[in-house]
Amino acid sequence: MSRAVVTAIRHASTALLNADVAAATLTAAEQNTITGLRDEIEDLLPVLLARQQPFASDLRLVLAAVHMNLDMDRMGALAGHIAGIGVSRHPVLVIPPEALPTVSAMAEVATSLAEKSALILATRDPIDAMQLDLDDDETDALLQQLFALLNDDWGHGTRSAIDVAMVGRFYERFADHAVGVGWQVAYLVTGSLRTGRM
Amino acid sequence: MSRAVVTAIRHASTALLNADVAAATLTAAEQNTITGLRDEIEDLLPVLLARQQPFASDLRLVLAAVHMNLDMDRMGALAGHIAGIGVSRHPVLVIPPEALPTVSAMAEVATSLAEKSALILATRDPIDAMQLDLDDDETDALLQQLFALLNDDWGHGTRSAIDVAMVGRFYERFADHAVGVGWQVAYLVTGSLRTGRM
Repeated sequence: MSRAVVTAIRHASTALLNADVAAATLTAAEQNTITGLRDEIEDLLPVLLARQQPFASDLRLVLAAVHMNLDMDRMGALAGHIAGIGVSRHPVLVIPPEALPTVSAMAEVATSLAEKSALILATRDPIDAMQLDLDDDETDALLQQLFALLNDDWGHGTRSAIDVAMVGRFYERFADHAVGVGWQVAYLVTGSLRTGRM
Repeated sequence: MSRAVVTAIRHASTALLNADVAAATLTAAEQNTITGLRDEIEDLLPVLLARQQPFASDLRLVLAAVHMNLDMDRMGALAGHIAGIGVSRHPVLVIPPEALPTVSAMAEVATSLAEKSALILATRDPIDAMQLDLDDDETDALLQQLFALLNDDWGHGTRSAIDVAMVGRFYERFADHAVGVGWQVAYLVTGSLRTGRM
């Protein structure tokens, strides 16, 4: 599921930055995969809990899995939103040249956070998990940078401004959920950390 | 927690529609209450699961509680965002006159959905829970109506358009989470319904 999320955000950014319809289709396909896995996990969790009567760390695993399942499902949906906006004026690009560096940077950070959260799911390293939270500061800085461009001198019209703002917001939420996955891994390992809800 | 969410969205809409700083402060206080309850519930769930070894419907209750806890926490955060935007130009109103009817209607629907989800948590009526989903269609229609206003003839500048768009989006997400609570109640009662993730 975490690998599908990485693939989804990659395709979504390709769709966005190139008005690439094929990439948007691939994003949608990946989103379907993610939703399917979400449903599988949701069906599995009550069965696991009921049959195996897990204790302590196993119990934490189940609770963390509920959270992470929702986080990753949401990441897939946000990738879908980004791809959808990206091709909404095909073949015209939705992101005007002056916003492109910032949006591209947001796309890179989001992809990197998704990759790291997928890795952390495998390694269960709580230090790496905490690091995600710091990495995410870059997303917040980039979003501020993006919103600073969207002032009343913006020369591309109202709809364009809203599209750019929404894309920024979606990347930010995507990054927040990647951090959320990290927090759940930290909780899983240490049993004491709170979810970093945002 | 569900009552605090209702209070939060009421204060948030007052803050938004009147640039009312006191109401924004009350929203923030309510959001703190919600976050506190979220943490209490998160701490309680593993204890409940481990000590009481719940089966079947009790087990569903725990899993549903994890979901609803996240939904309601998010509703509190969204109310906070709405209030924050609402007073960001105090004493100037953020919502221009032509958008006011639509935004007011969205505020009313969001409050009503929050009230209904709080009631459904008490009654556990799965039919009412499913009805929430239908009620939410109104939110989607209102959001479309709002975005139709935000075209290139919008006369209030780029930042204003983005604020209005974000407020619309936040009400929509708030409503989605209220529906999410309803789905969890339906799951709780019937054991077979999926979460209506959005």
